[in-house]
Amino acid sequence: MSPVFNFSAGPAVLPREVLIEVQKELMDWHGTGMSVMEMSHRGKEFMQIAAEAEEDLRSLMGIGKNYKVLFLQGGASTQFAMVPMNLVRGKKVIDFVDTGHWSKLAIKEARKFADVNIVASSEDRAYAYVPAQEAWKRSADAAYLHYTSNETIGGVEYPFTPDAGDTPLVCDVSSNFLSRPVEVNKFGLIYGGAQKNIGPAGLTVVIVREDLLGQVVPGTPTMFDYKIHADGDSMYNTPPTFAIYVAGLVFKWILKQGGLKAIEQRNIEKAALLYEVIDNSGDFYACPVDKPFRSRMNVPFRLTDERLDDEFIKEAKVRNLLQLKGHRSVGGMRASIYNAMPFEGVKALANFMQDFAKNHG
Amino acid sequence: MSPVFNFSAGPAVLPREVLIEVQKELMDWHGTGMSVMEMSHRGKEFMQIAAEAEEDLRSLMGIGKNYKVLFLQGGASTQFAMVPMNLVRGKKVIDFVDTGHWSKLAIKEARKFADVNIVASSEDRAYAYVPAQEAWKRSADAAYLHYTSNETIGGVEYPFTPDAGDTPLVCDVSSNFLSRPVEVNKFGLIYGGAQKNIGPAGLTVVIVREDLLGQVVPGTPTMFDYKIHADGDSMYNTPPTFAIYVAGLVFKWILKQGGLKAIEQRNIEKAALLYEVIDNSGDFYACPVDKPFRSRMNVPFRLTDERLDDEFIKEAKVRNLLQLKGHRSVGGMRASIYNAMPFEGVKALANFMQDFAKNHG
Repeated sequence: MSPVFNFSAGPAVLPREVLIEVQKELMDWHGTGMSVMEMSHRGKEFMQIAAEAEEDLRSLMGIGKNYKVLFLQGGASTQFAMVPMNLVRGKKVIDFVDTGHWSKLAIKEARKFADVNIVASSEDRAYAYVPAQEAWKRSADAAYLHYTSNETIGGVEYPFTPDAGDTPLVCDVSSNFLSRPVEVNKFGLIYGGAQKNIGPAGLTVVIVREDLLGQVVPGTPTMFDYKIHADGDSMYNTPPTFAIYVAGLVFKWILKQGGLKAIEQRNIEKAALLYEVIDNSGDFYACPVDKPFRSRMNVPFRLTDERLDDEFIKEAKVRNLLQLKGHRSVGGMRASIYNAMPFEGVKALANFMQDFAKNHG
Repeated sequence: MSPVFNFSAGPAVLPREVLIEVQKELMDWHGTGMSVMEMSHRGKEFMQIAAEAEEDLRSLMGIGKNYKVLFLQGGASTQFAMVPMNLVRGKKVIDFVDTGHWSKLAIKEARKFADVNIVASSEDRAYAYVPAQEAWKRSADAAYLHYTSNETIGGVEYPFTPDAGDTPLVCDVSSNFLSRPVEVNKFGLIYGGAQKNIGPAGLTVVIVREDLLGQVVPGTPTMFDYKIHADGDSMYNTPPTFAIYVAGLVFKWILKQGGLKAIEQRNIEKAALLYEVIDNSGDFYACPVDKPFRSRMNVPFRLTDERLDDEFIKEAKVRNLLQLKGHRSVGGMRASIYNAMPFEGVKALANFMQDFAKNHG
């Protein structure tokens, strides 16, 4: 059987080398006689695993000492409330850029805790682009400026880091986390669910500048207070230990690949393969996103003749190319090609798309 | 090397048969070519895993159709806020029984959302017992009555289910979940973290009577609204998929053991072994808990001569008996003997305790 390539948008493919290691030590981690799943989070074995995971992430991203790294639960959806409950700090308004589905959800939730100012939106053209920063209508005294660096459903990715001046910049990086270098010191807070680019579902990573902590809205649940988690080194209560362990192995895998610069280069090449097939298909395929803003992680495309959609999915499956159906809200196709998707997987998909266009065009 | 027995209070030992299965199918679940960690939560494979886990749990506990089963994140500590934010429903006061560390944390958090009435507390005798129900001073119109069925640190377990009349009964079952039969229909809500008795850390199970849903406190984060999760079949956002899968295998393992009645019988026998050694040690060991309320899950004990504590831990380790140190807040020793701790493990500990007492007594 030829290998299976899984283009799921998340939870998604993990590096094969990491899964092999997880399998090998599943019953007995490093001669302890225990599975990582069975370890007390306060035992020296797991403390070492968690500390290494944090160290490796800090080294990968170049995270300064004035930032806390938190391993939390609940996904980005939980952060949609947790960020404002911590960062509003008595201000009246939060600035948001609206670039699609996930921005909109973050905005909706934030309205529970403050006024929201949409500095710019690309809704006018079905979220096919990122609005140019020069035209953003920012508030004079916003609590923070929030954006979504990659829209998983729309396939729109920021090619730049916004300049927020003295306003804390907050970013949902769930679907392009660790896919390229990041200048962490430009941010007040970075958050992302693990299940797309860095590990199993059930882990959320938050990187937050220390001076922003400790001013939660009254009535905030203890578990929603970043400072509680920061003071407890993410062990105020039992953390998602196994997910932290797997993410830690993924961090080591990225370091071994050469770090974020090298990973970025691979991601550029992988994405180019697919967009080239689409653009050179003579309108057999179409990508709805403007070229400068096309995501390297999630490649959405349509068959111009929609009647071929089912056949496309069916024939792809025969070649072991899985999970290509677009999100139910937009239809069409979507190939998610995160860090762990090997070049051969993308190549196999590109070849299939060319063959399919030839046979059905 | 003789097998390792891990008496951690949580995360804790998992059934060996379950870990073997997890290891076997880690790289390729049922011929799909995917690890469970890599599966989309909305794909048919994971949907089947989650549905089976829910069905098996319903069948194990006899959960009626008027109850929702939710697979959430954040641990019991998150529930300490989530329960009142959902169940206060305009009432003024919540009734609590205080039996130790975890009751106290639940009480502290609930005070953010309503007045709290402590119906009874066993603090007067260092939480060595459960106050008799006849003396509980309940409110006339409480939103609900909350208790902690097993105090993991104190080692105090309820030998009875409280009678709350028409008031919804709410229970934190984190540390004795699925260790004995439960009459679910006596409860408004049951919650527990998975990492003690049913699976890896990062999964929280909530069982809630449907008529109690849909009346959250204004300003409640979306992710804290049970109804959102109930309406989305626990897939409003990405659930902790791998933890749900492992818990599902544990549910099947318990069914194979004969269900909760059979598991309870084994737990009674295991606990009796240790308490007998303690009680027959001629005061070499002492258990601080009154006999009727001694936990079957967490057996706390002290060496009368505390100077022997370190030696006890050291010699236990030589016999591969791990994680016996008591919680830092109470000291002494604690043996956690959840469902997955085999009889041989408890027997090995009992033998060691007798030998140690003989050699050092």
